[in-house]
Amino acid sequence: SRNIRLAVIPGDGIGTEVVTEGLKVLEAVGVKIESTHYDLGATRYHATGETLSDEVLQELRGYDAILLGAIGDPSVPPGILERELLLRLRFELDHYVNLRPVKLFPGVETPLADTLPGDIDMVVVREGTESLYAGAGGVLRRGTPHEIATQESLNTAFGVERVVRYAFARAAERPRKKLTLVHKTNVLTYAGDLWQRTVNRIAPEFPEVTTDYQHIDAASMFFVNQPERFDVIVTDNLFGDIITDIGAAIAGGIGLAASGNINPDRTAPSMFEPVHGSAPDIAGQGKADPTATILSVAMMLDHLGLTEEAARVEQAVADDIVERLAGWAGRTTHEIGDDITARVSGGA
Amino acid sequence: SRNIRLAVIPGDGIGTEVVTEGLKVLEAVGVKIESTHYDLGATRYHATGETLSDEVLQELRGYDAILLGAIGDPSVPPGILERELLLRLRFELDHYVNLRPVKLFPGVETPLADTLPGDIDMVVVREGTESLYAGAGGVLRRGTPHEIATQESLNTAFGVERVVRYAFARAAERPRKKLTLVHKTNVLTYAGDLWQRTVNRIAPEFPEVTTDYQHIDAASMFFVNQPERFDVIVTDNLFGDIITDIGAAIAGGIGLAASGNINPDRTAPSMFEPVHGSAPDIAGQGKADPTATILSVAMMLDHLGLTEEAARVEQAVADDIVERLAGWAGRTTHEIGDDITARVSGGA
Ligand SMILES: CC(C)[C@H](C(=O)O)[C@@H](O)C(=O)O
Ligand SMILES: CC(C)[C@H](C(=O)O)[C@@H](O)C(=O)O
Repeated sequence: SRNIRLAVIPGDGIGTEVVTEGLKVLEAVGVKIESTHYDLGATRYHATGETLSDEVLQELRGYDAILLGAIGDPSVPPGILERELLLRLRFELDHYVNLRPVKLFPGVETPLADTLPGDIDMVVVREGTESLYAGAGGVLRRGTPHEIATQESLNTAFGVERVVRYAFARAAERPRKKLTLVHKTNVLTYAGDLWQRTVNRIAPEFPEVTTDYQHIDAASMFFVNQPERFDVIVTDNLFGDIITDIGAAIAGGIGLAASGNINPDRTAPSMFEPVHGSAPDIAGQGKADPTATILSVAMMLDHLGLTEEAARVEQAVADDIVERLAGWAGRTTHEIGDDITARVSGGA
Repeated sequence: SRNIRLAVIPGDGIGTEVVTEGLKVLEAVGVKIESTHYDLGATRYHATGETLSDEVLQELRGYDAILLGAIGDPSVPPGILERELLLRLRFELDHYVNLRPVKLFPGVETPLADTLPGDIDMVVVREGTESLYAGAGGVLRRGTPHEIATQESLNTAFGVERVVRYAFARAAERPRKKLTLVHKTNVLTYAGDLWQRTVNRIAPEFPEVTTDYQHIDAASMFFVNQPERFDVIVTDNLFGDIITDIGAAIAGGIGLAASGNINPDRTAPSMFEPVHGSAPDIAGQGKADPTATILSVAMMLDHLGLTEEAARVEQAVADDIVERLAGWAGRTTHEIGDDITARVSGGA
């Protein structure tokens, strides 16, 4: 089989550290990879003023997939790297599915009392190209007592339908076959109505899937006190952002939370990244847990049709986590990467 | 002292049940109350099509305070009662502070492992009259493949400054004196910038208060795995809605979460209500916990300057909760109300 062409964007802070380990595991799993690094992020921005040029974006379209570490640094005003680089990639490459599993691995410590691995096993399908993330809005009379600032949530039938359909298909594949729409239909009446009508309209195409609805506030509460309520969740970009961080917390922390920015139509490469940020406070110290990136690599392998390899990486992570429980904690970023790599290559 | 003129809106579902107990406690605390009931909510809406008339709104302005149970019923399309009744009251009566304490009472079971009462003791100051709750937005080509639906978040310097100033004042009164702004400045750049600049500008007026910032996604995670990070939080209407439900979950459930919709300038009556909804699934069965309403009554007494009475009600609740721990569970709505009432009147 031909080589997989991979674009790697380590990014800022701990991004570089965790991506190194992700690539180590990828190599060990035995797929042929041809990877090119792109030094996008804060350093490049400070040196050249560039966030993401049209040329680089065009080049990125030519890859089979993108692996991203983390974007963002306190030296850059909030929003610049996020909007012009990270979100631009998600929007331009039409990553309309932001896929975020929330799964408690056996052996992982959850902050929730009396919670067993089987209680937390869901997949959040977060819409990735619309809503308040569109960047619409403006400001008038900035810095004066008469300032007004607006943000607009843009939602289309086209955009909502495709992600809802994807979520139904995921739900249909899972044992529980339950899909929960999370929104705020009682306040965001226009957008909420579009989402709810879309779910209602698609539902008959998936008669085996049970559907449910929860307001974002109630859903956030249930993540904490009844996480077993959820199987597959479909939700908008902002609500998905919030709920997947709660998901990361209950499933043992942001060090384990993987994500895929998926273009299901494959008109452009999908992009895989840990849910965590660049964590400048611990960068360069070998303290970051690369597991979230390694699990994102597993999602990438799965997306590329390498299901056996994906399963092998996921199993290696699961085994490594059980080992932690047995007191093997306190490892550096490299050590965790090495241990998982050894398991993947069959050496552990 | 003159009578307190109180408007009571029991509302829908369990609203009526919990308000009955709240009033019982209020009577027992020994303040002179003159209360008038308003049958606003789903029943009135179905009978007359009326949600909140200008006349009733005008009348409500004449009271010292409003006690509200819960609004909403599945028989009414989402948004109608919320927008035309509940949110209309909050907006018209200029309840720009939606005050929601998040406090773990000793004896309450929290879903978080290894968490002690002192770890969860914060106050969320949720803005109540702006942002996505303004109801701005629209829909085009509804029900067609070309539908677009928008929601607009409206934020003003006037609106943000007053609530930020209130939050600083609250923080200055508390032992830890820490104020955390929660927003999403890296994506909602216009509104986020207004909030962050406002906090920065007011901060020098409160040199004793430490300020901090967290994105809504990170804050939601920290509510679950590091709640001790927070003292006073100031945030926008939508983020405050979400985060206070997580707060309710970690502090032992929605049955204990109180709130005040406050007009600090006292140009109109403030309104006190439990954070929970009308819970139609358990309505009429005596299953609802009236404690959230009773704690909202305590907030009301405090707002009306009756601090000794407020403290007495809060203490009665605290004592009642300790009793629960001792196995005194399984009580009906009435029984809990009676028990707290007895404590308030000194009979327990
Ligand atoms: C960095 C930020 C723009 C991003 C988001 O809000 O989507 C992050 O929080 C995430 O969840 O991937
Ligand atoms: C019922 C609903 C409109 C309301 C809100 O979103 O503010 C509720 O969730 C609350 O928190 O009081």
